[in-house]
Amino acid sequence: MGVPLAPHPDRLFPPDPADRGIARELHAAVAELPIVSPHGHVDPGLLAEDRAFGDPASLLVTPDHYVTRLLHAHGVPLERLGLTDADGAVAAAPREVWREFCAGWPLFLGTATRGWLEQELAEVLGVTEQPSADHADALFDELTARLARADMHPRALFHRFRIDALATTDDPADDLRHHRALAADPSWTGRVVPTFRPDRYLDATSPGWPAALDRLGEAAGIAIGSYDDLVAALERRRAYFAEHGATATDHSAPTPRAAFLDVADARRLFDAVRSGSGTPADATTLSEQLLGEMARMSTEDGLVMALHCGVRRNHHPGTWRRFGPDTGHDIPVHAEFTAALAPMLERFGTHPRFRTVLFTLDETVFSRELAPLAGFYPSVFVGAPWWFLDAPRAMRRARDAITETAGFFRGSGFVDDTRGFCSIPARHDTARRVDAGYLAGLVAEHVISLDDAHTVIRNWVLDAPRTAFGL
Amino acid sequence: MGVPLAPHPDRLFPPDPADRGIARELHAAVAELPIVSPHGHVDPGLLAEDRAFGDPASLLVTPDHYVTRLLHAHGVPLERLGLTDADGAVAAAPREVWREFCAGWPLFLGTATRGWLEQELAEVLGVTEQPSADHADALFDELTARLARADMHPRALFHRFRIDALATTDDPADDLRHHRALAADPSWTGRVVPTFRPDRYLDATSPGWPAALDRLGEAAGIAIGSYDDLVAALERRRAYFAEHGATATDHSAPTPRAAFLDVADARRLFDAVRSGSGTPADATTLSEQLLGEMARMSTEDGLVMALHCGVRRNHHPGTWRRFGPDTGHDIPVHAEFTAALAPMLERFGTHPRFRTVLFTLDETVFSRELAPLAGFYPSVFVGAPWWFLDAPRAMRRARDAITETAGFFRGSGFVDDTRGFCSIPARHDTARRVDAGYLAGLVAEHVISLDDAHTVIRNWVLDAPRTAFGL
Amino acid sequence: MGVPLAPHPDRLFPPDPADRGIARELHAAVAELPIVSPHGHVDPGLLAEDRAFGDPASLLVTPDHYVTRLLHAHGVPLERLGLTDADGAVAAAPREVWREFCAGWPLFLGTATRGWLEQELAEVLGVTEQPSADHADALFDELTARLARADMHPRALFHRFRIDALATTDDPADDLRHHRALAADPSWTGRVVPTFRPDRYLDATSPGWPAALDRLGEAAGIAIGSYDDLVAALERRRAYFAEHGATATDHSAPTPRAAFLDVADARRLFDAVRSGSGTPADATTLSEQLLGEMARMSTEDGLVMALHCGVRRNHHPGTWRRFGPDTGHDIPVHAEFTAALAPMLERFGTHPRFRTVLFTLDETVFSRELAPLAGFYPSVFVGAPWWFLDAPRAMRRARDAITETAGFFRGSGFVDDTRGFCSIPARHDTARRVDAGYLAGLVAEHVISLDDAHTVIRNWVLDAPRTAFGL
Repeated sequence: MGVPLAPHPDRLFPPDPADRGIARELHAAVAELPIVSPHGHVDPGLLAEDRAFGDPASLLVTPDHYVTRLLHAHGVPLERLGLTDADGAVAAAPREVWREFCAGWPLFLGTATRGWLEQELAEVLGVTEQPSADHADALFDELTARLARADMHPRALFHRFRIDALATTDDPADDLRHHRALAADPSWTGRVVPTFRPDRYLDATSPGWPAALDRLGEAAGIAIGSYDDLVAALERRRAYFAEHGATATDHSAPTPRAAFLDVADARRLFDAVRSGSGTPADATTLSEQLLGEMARMSTEDGLVMALHCGVRRNHHPGTWRRFGPDTGHDIPVHAEFTAALAPMLERFGTHPRFRTVLFTLDETVFSRELAPLAGFYPSVFVGAPWWFLDAPRAMRRARDAITETAGFFRGSGFVDDTRGFCSIPARHDTARRVDAGYLAGLVAEHVISLDDAHTVIRNWVLDAPRTAFGL
Repeated sequence: MGVPLAPHPDRLFPPDPADRGIARELHAAVAELPIVSPHGHVDPGLLAEDRAFGDPASLLVTPDHYVTRLLHAHGVPLERLGLTDADGAVAAAPREVWREFCAGWPLFLGTATRGWLEQELAEVLGVTEQPSADHADALFDELTARLARADMHPRALFHRFRIDALATTDDPADDLRHHRALAADPSWTGRVVPTFRPDRYLDATSPGWPAALDRLGEAAGIAIGSYDDLVAALERRRAYFAEHGATATDHSAPTPRAAFLDVADARRLFDAVRSGSGTPADATTLSEQLLGEMARMSTEDGLVMALHCGVRRNHHPGTWRRFGPDTGHDIPVHAEFTAALAPMLERFGTHPRFRTVLFTLDETVFSRELAPLAGFYPSVFVGAPWWFLDAPRAMRRARDAITETAGFFRGSGFVDDTRGFCSIPARHDTARRVDAGYLAGLVAEHVISLDDAHTVIRNWVLDAPRTAFGL
Repeated sequence: MGVPLAPHPDRLFPPDPADRGIARELHAAVAELPIVSPHGHVDPGLLAEDRAFGDPASLLVTPDHYVTRLLHAHGVPLERLGLTDADGAVAAAPREVWREFCAGWPLFLGTATRGWLEQELAEVLGVTEQPSADHADALFDELTARLARADMHPRALFHRFRIDALATTDDPADDLRHHRALAADPSWTGRVVPTFRPDRYLDATSPGWPAALDRLGEAAGIAIGSYDDLVAALERRRAYFAEHGATATDHSAPTPRAAFLDVADARRLFDAVRSGSGTPADATTLSEQLLGEMARMSTEDGLVMALHCGVRRNHHPGTWRRFGPDTGHDIPVHAEFTAALAPMLERFGTHPRFRTVLFTLDETVFSRELAPLAGFYPSVFVGAPWWFLDAPRAMRRARDAITETAGFFRGSGFVDDTRGFCSIPARHDTARRVDAGYLAGLVAEHVISLDDAHTVIRNWVLDAPRTAFGL
């Protein structure tokens, strides 16, 4: 027998008995509420095609860079974790990958990932023992068999998870065929909406930008030869996304700075950068100008603008060349919002249709910049702690940093941001537990009443994400 | 009946029963001690003229940008909150403003402002029910009547609040007539001292600087035509303030950097900037030079130099143009003290008469820069958490960040920084509660003894502000 | 009678009874384990010569800039604390210094230093009363007599402290005669290893750099006339250190940025800077290039590269001129690792022999940069909270900031970094207590099991420093 896997019903609640009782009550009040997932990276084809997940390594290990990165840090090369080489080679079979994962299981202790995995393994996949090197093969076989069952297919899980709305993240040139297939399927009743993610078309500093414009032009039916063409193509694709249910755009910009040039200057910049004669500074300014156009379009079509800022992508070029992006070495950097956002908020900060949700990987800006901004501008919402910060203690720190200035009602609600469909309930439940514990602390300190705490936690689960993302 | 308004006697104390008992004891030991308020924005005319406050909206809502900003963030335009337009128009009557406030009351849950308002409403204004849209008019009438009573006039409250000393913030060109009236009034026994706030005369980057110099010159009786004239005028006004009880100067500088040029260079810079022929860099350097002169004067006249740094004023120009400054959109930015203070502290850091109190809106500098500086330089005091940070959890974080390096006795004591006279007791009591809870935690962890905790909290209430501000 | 000095057996444990019980158990399991001290500043001559310590002021006050700086902040001039003037004068006798310290004892309340001193005085030096002005002379005499006893000599204490390994910090030009003497002494069985600290030879921006190269060349037996000579001399001295037991190099660089120039460019830069014709930017680039050479050498000789970054040394030039460096006015600054480390980690981040331990005085980088880096790169370890941050609450914050991203096993283990040999047990015990309390909190919240907590705390005490520093 191995070590039992049994997430404790009181996990993440404060240890003091009085506090814990309040936290239990608050959590119980929202534990069964539906899941609103306004931002994530689930493949919509998963639900459109509704095929079985296959084996546990391909479900839980290889595609999850939270998992592969920490194993890599402990000396497991990425090729041993099933990642695909640039030449298409895969060095490790799923069973071998699973063995690495089980052997490395103790290394995840204390991480957010460990908590999610424990709950996902126990509650979604029915596992009752901690993974271990000794039982890796048996567990692999057990899970592979279980994943083949009809009640473990994506659509069955979607309903079992009580997902009220799920936003995916999509390329503007995407034809949204999976979203269309779901919409056209009379047997499907869930809500899955696309999100417009135009980074590659706005980033004029990238060597791949001209080629990206060609793809976008094709999708939009506009040959992009000028700044005006690009703007028109973006507007047309936004309209297409909105017709298919999108309520938001999503941007991973180095900074949130937007530019608002005269159109003549913007046209000149476009021509210079497109033709290769522009300077790096021209390309940066053009990118900022295009972000400004996105904000302007949001005031017209009402799509919420989510801004994820402050990460240096592909920190280790060798790994990027070999295995591509999103392989665990995007590293956060210092962020600055107050000055950078001034141009955008000067124009649109009080515009009645404009709404932006600001995400950061730099915790210091929560109290210094984001809460003060969201505590004045009706258009600004503080994005939930994201990526490295969507972990219990980091989420508590963020609540502490934001609330005293901006109150309870200027945040985005929890954002799972996940590629792992089966991890969605664990992630949302973790956030609900943390929030229950946080509010219990305020009740125990007589800062708010228990009645108010009930109102707040229900708001955070349902109303906050719907409001912030226009769902 | 509405929801009762009854601040709990144990509010803000730690929930663990043992800790809470210690916190109660420590708080009780200082709860009735006098209030020393070394920095704030109360209008001295309030006490000189001792007129009734009028209605609750004009007392609690319209002038308090903590309140108006959060209502604004939730979609209430500032004109609905009684703010005066640039053309002098006021769109909303106090009763209408009060209705907006009462309707928005739940939005303040969890904020520092809510805590202060609950205590102020309950303990100063005798309110027994939470404000609500349903009872807004009744409460408006009730409070308007109550505010007219003689025992609710400013001087009566000053004594009821047990204010030992109150520092106001004053323009160097001000004739201090209210302070003089109080000093000349034999029926008045309280201590109200001015503070010398010369920002507009030191900020050579502002378009309004030349006109400001003219006003200053008039007040000083010196026509300011040269750098030496400006220095002389500033010295003369400082002396005037000191004669009227001032113990400190107060500076809201973008950074704490001071310059110490040769006087010939300073004169040339002054001439260039005054005549409009200087560059922006010249104006910045001149401003830094004038800050350096302030530090030098402090070594001579002994006025303590309070430095408030790191905020971008008037972030939303549209609101500033329409409603003026201090309307809720000053937003903090990243701060840096270590390098910026080097020139000033090289000269005066160990000067026996020099004292500076450093305030920040960027929490990260407490442990990284301010505690290390105050833990070496006898002239440096760490300013209390200020503005967005004078809230319970932020104050605890600051204590945690400062104490282990600088100990208990290198801080400024609590600074209420308020425009709201009636909020003074609630703000100081909140700080005393937080400090009692903080020290209780140290006692419970056996880091300090209960006897020592009593010494420390008494020091924080009375000695710390007197020492840091020379009161 | 004075106030008793009796550190509480439960100090630094969480106050909640359930948590405290867990913390006690975890602490008890590691309290008697040996001490691994992978980085510090103990003089190896102390152990080689094994002479008595003398008087308590010379042991505890004068050489400890944590102590002198806070007394200085409260107005005690450094010359009253026994510091030696630039002209060699010492103004205060040890007894007088001790009187200042005893009078200032209450000022340390709440600081990390106070906690260490209480434990050191009680458990190493047998003191049973708090120091006080009244009993200063009696305590001075008592301690002077006690320090003369044979069981209070350094080697006796080394064994009593259960020191398993002690790393000193040494100049590359040092002949390591004390380390050799210890190795040659058959009566000595302890492990004391040198650390290669080459700052002055790498910092080409310093006016003293050319003279430093001459000293290094002499030690290496290579006249350093070229870049290649310098590289060869550094390699030779590293080999010499490794032969004498060194496992690590230690660097106090302004930033962790390394350069990797073509060797021809490096040679040209060296020649320009050495001859005095280089620009300041040349000198900076050359320094970065030499840091890059250090990293490259680490991949060859396996010495771990410890990087201590982000402090402005000698902030108060007057004090530096009079009393020299390390006199309490090194002040931290904002740090940045993500971008700065990119060149080094691009080359060596996944190199099988490369290992770097990153130390910061800027807490904000723990969650933002260091945990993400150490959670991907097998070569990167997060250095323990250091210097101003090796205090109970700062250590807890660091654990909270690091663990959720990087887990428990990517850190350096505790680093005492001390000049005060007798403070070593108190510092390590403080860290073990804080870690026991931290893990108890995770157990109480059901994040980890008690069994896992035992595994983790034992790892932190023994395995972590050995792994990170190659001991």
